[in-house]
Amino acid sequence: MSKRSALESYKQGEGWWKTDISQIKKNEVNIRGYKMEELIGNVSYSQMLYLLLCGDVLDEKKAKLFESVLVAGADHGPRAPSIAAGRMAATCGISFNSAVATGINLLGDSHGGATERGMKLLYETWEEALDNDKELDQVIDDKLEDMLAKKEKLPGVGHQLHDDDPRVHRLYELAEPMVENKDISGVYLQIAEQYQRLLAEKKNREITMNIDGVAAAIQCEIGLPAEAAKGIFALSRGMGITAHAFEEMNTGVLVKGPCPNDEELVKYTGVEDRKLGGREEI
Amino acid sequence: MSKRSALESYKQGEGWWKTDISQIKKNEVNIRGYKMEELIGNVSYSQMLYLLLCGDVLDEKKAKLFESVLVAGADHGPRAPSIAAGRMAATCGISFNSAVATGINLLGDSHGGATERGMKLLYETWEEALDNDKELDQVIDDKLEDMLAKKEKLPGVGHQLHDDDPRVHRLYELAEPMVENKDISGVYLQIAEQYQRLLAEKKNREITMNIDGVAAAIQCEIGLPAEAAKGIFALSRGMGITAHAFEEMNTGVLVKGPCPNDEELVKYTGVEDRKLGGREEI
Amino acid sequence: MSKRSALESYKQGEGWWKTDISQIKKNEVNIRGYKMEELIGNVSYSQMLYLLLCGDVLDEKKAKLFESVLVAGADHGPRAPSIAAGRMAATCGISFNSAVATGINLLGDSHGGATERGMKLLYETWEEALDNDKELDQVIDDKLEDMLAKKEKLPGVGHQLHDDDPRVHRLYELAEPMVENKDISGVYLQIAEQYQRLLAEKKNREITMNIDGVAAAIQCEIGLPAEAAKGIFALSRGMGITAHAFEEMNTGVLVKGPCPNDEELVKYTGVEDRKLGGREEI
Amino acid sequence: MSKRSALESYKQGEGWWKTDISQIKKNEVNIRGYKMEELIGNVSYSQMLYLLLCGDVLDEKKAKLFESVLVAGADHGPRAPSIAAGRMAATCGISFNSAVATGINLLGDSHGGATERGMKLLYETWEEALDNDKELDQVIDDKLEDMLAKKEKLPGVGHQLHDDDPRVHRLYELAEPMVENKDISGVYLQIAEQYQRLLAEKKNREITMNIDGVAAAIQCEIGLPAEAAKGIFALSRGMGITAHAFEEMNTGVLVKGPCPNDEELVKYTGVEDRKLGGREEI
Repeated sequence: MSKRSALESYKQGEGWWKTDISQIKKNEVNIRGYKMEELIGNVSYSQMLYLLLCGDVLDEKKAKLFESVLVAGADHGPRAPSIAAGRMAATCGISFNSAVATGINLLGDSHGGATERGMKLLYETWEEALDNDKELDQVIDDKLEDMLAKKEKLPGVGHQLHDDDPRVHRLYELAEPMVENKDISGVYLQIAEQYQRLLAEKKNREITMNIDGVAAAIQCEIGLPAEAAKGIFALSRGMGITAHAFEEMNTGVLVKGPCPNDEELVKYTGVEDRKLGGREEI
Repeated sequence: MSKRSALESYKQGEGWWKTDISQIKKNEVNIRGYKMEELIGNVSYSQMLYLLLCGDVLDEKKAKLFESVLVAGADHGPRAPSIAAGRMAATCGISFNSAVATGINLLGDSHGGATERGMKLLYETWEEALDNDKELDQVIDDKLEDMLAKKEKLPGVGHQLHDDDPRVHRLYELAEPMVENKDISGVYLQIAEQYQRLLAEKKNREITMNIDGVAAAIQCEIGLPAEAAKGIFALSRGMGITAHAFEEMNTGVLVKGPCPNDEELVKYTGVEDRKLGGREEI
Repeated sequence: MSKRSALESYKQGEGWWKTDISQIKKNEVNIRGYKMEELIGNVSYSQMLYLLLCGDVLDEKKAKLFESVLVAGADHGPRAPSIAAGRMAATCGISFNSAVATGINLLGDSHGGATERGMKLLYETWEEALDNDKELDQVIDDKLEDMLAKKEKLPGVGHQLHDDDPRVHRLYELAEPMVENKDISGVYLQIAEQYQRLLAEKKNREITMNIDGVAAAIQCEIGLPAEAAKGIFALSRGMGITAHAFEEMNTGVLVKGPCPNDEELVKYTGVEDRKLGGREEI
Repeated sequence: MSKRSALESYKQGEGWWKTDISQIKKNEVNIRGYKMEELIGNVSYSQMLYLLLCGDVLDEKKAKLFESVLVAGADHGPRAPSIAAGRMAATCGISFNSAVATGINLLGDSHGGATERGMKLLYETWEEALDNDKELDQVIDDKLEDMLAKKEKLPGVGHQLHDDDPRVHRLYELAEPMVENKDISGVYLQIAEQYQRLLAEKKNREITMNIDGVAAAIQCEIGLPAEAAKGIFALSRGMGITAHAFEEMNTGVLVKGPCPNDEELVKYTGVEDRKLGGREEI
């Protein structure tokens, strides 16, 4: 292991657990240097999350935009695997928080994870343009060509169900006046759109930005780290998981499976009757 | 099983999954009857959570009070088991959302669960007073005597570390003018205080309300269901878990244990050397 | 909190983490006093689990019986919520162990938890007969009457699907010669059967023992603690969860929901179109 | 998404859930074509796991070797993050299976995940030699040079604590006579050793194989799929997690953190006192 171990740091007096986030003493709870009692009632949920993650208090306009992203991702119905798993968990007799954790455990690279990949791409694109003093459009073209050559999927475009997602329009509608007003730079929103347009052009078919794409752009605009994206989405979709698990718990049905036991829904496709001692043992 | 099974309802045409929460169609995401694009930018995180859980849009004043509770519980440092588990998980090479889920999985009956028990007690107390037309103070006295007789712990009082928690004062400070202004009834805040005062009197020692106690009272004031409390707390403390797991992930240390390997921290207290084949086999 | 805190014990020099289970030193791994290298190849999976949990090496006959219980509970198909949740998780792009953990998280009081309740009842029944020098049948009758009066469900009888479960017969078939041979006492198997017979008699209808009931009886016969039952089942059903999640992961489908999006399977039952600003806000 | 969707397959009549593993009907539980009642009492835990995962009944000798790997990984003490997280979870008032799931959730790429990477490397190495008709030693040398050039870590060698792990010796001791007896080919054990020797030679220092390395080699010898390794390890280490969580639950301590609140263990390293409204807002 090339990385320095926790033990080494500890031996050098750095503490086993060290944190810039919070300091807890008797009758004192301080977050990033602020007294908790000053934060309560003065900062919103999205400001608190940003403060905990990034160490600064986001201004109100940006905080509202961030909050809009959290609201937009809150639910996508009981067929999303995260929601379905949370609902099933709620019928199994476990602690309610564990039903919520069950759903959140599923929000991985494929289920909501495109935002992280999108943010990385947007940050990289902009840095590459700055560092090499290249035209932004040229960087985007080069990177997209490279992705297509490697058969990688562009994150943040396309959807199993929607081809004109009302959430995406609404988020752009909220972000655009902030760009005009110079509250945010707009550069990441622009890069995201350029990727989508260019892919549509290269593929010669309609391709629309999805909720992960616009969420990535906005979260870059306000300076969130890409690697935290799956945690942030956990707190957004976590609202829907909590509500759906709660609704299912209240129906009183016990040990609910994913679907009825119909032959066209659940099919056994394996080996038919056999007995131990046969040839197939290895 | 006395409860009606999912299969029975399904056979009666009720749908296997049925929900009052959301309706998803092509290019439409509707939450509790509202178009998602109308909610985005118009409702806050706490309003969205309340809408998903309870079906109504909470007015702004109550929503801010609810948000204050979410902010107040967001973090209590790396020694909270939920936070520590999330931090350790972040060093183990799993999906970041799963590190967050790990921490949330721990927020059970003992770790943050007092709010649920507190809310149940407050709702029951008030209902009992109303239903039986009894003096509130008498109901509280009777119920507390009953709890003491059964050696049950009053939820929402006392803390391992704090005996004068600044978060509690601040939340009362925010709630009180709302009572005066009749934005909330104040009845649950009053019942909570009366339980705390009466217990202190009966025990003849100082006993202070804790953050779970005041959270319970406020969440009753705005009509949240007690059974959802552990899920709501998951989204509050989830902020701290996300931030701490993210901080730990960024240190680059791999597979971090709970503490250094010092003899006084980790002690083997079991049987000394023995060999198979001895008498102890059973 | 009436219980002694971890801090108090630590201050008295007891160690923060103390364990009778394992002692790890440089190039030494000792389990319950045995060198790990002596255990590897000499004890079976079920012996190792028993040793870790209970501190003793189970004799081979009992270990085989315990292993039979672990094998019997390994799988019940993709409609079990634990299995379905694990399969869905495997399509979401998370670490494979987290897909397994997702399924195990669901094996709670309602889903597999009857074994714990069953074991408690069997242990209590036998202790009560011994302590009070009462006839076993009388104790069983009294306790069952009490449960019926409180409308509590007898654990370990009845099943949503099976009324003559082949796993139950087979486990009895394996246990009975061991009773005759005095390898196990047989008392808990007998108590379990008596509860089932008596309930059928009182209800005047056929009631059969289920897999949880016979698992409870056998696990009592070999002295496992009731409170560990949900963990033991996690390692039994964990086999099926692992295999099903692995199968689903290999299909290559991404973000798989619980069922197709058919109207009769997924139904929206909530409020129809409304707009913000209406009367329903609270 | 280039992969075929679940919906497409379903529309073509393939079933939403399809499985080769198990078929459940009224009073019938069939696993891979075998009646469950035939498996119970006739196959061991490791045979059942292999059957569920791979579809065949492993012969007894190989099954015992596989079982030895499961036993060898069962526990590494309370400082392993998986074990520590499970122990903390057991003090938080959640369902016991959820405490076990908490620990298993941590067994990711860094914590136990080297076995999967090791298996992939061993399978690839052997295939490359076969496919290209190349000398095995040459393939190993080429691949190792390639890994070193890319600064990738060779999986299965080195350990934070052990440099002469007794578990590794013991597993080789059990496997070697099986190679001589042609029960297993021995090719993967040999490849694993050659990688370790060659790396030690190239680095010119002692480098020893670790438990993940030998587990990988044995699991390749018996034909397990690499991608299932983290699930298999979950069932091995799951024994230790269950036992440790159970031990901690029985101490009766509530809400136990990772370590005492000593300054040298838990250090706040962030910004000191500041107030809202200052310059740092962004």
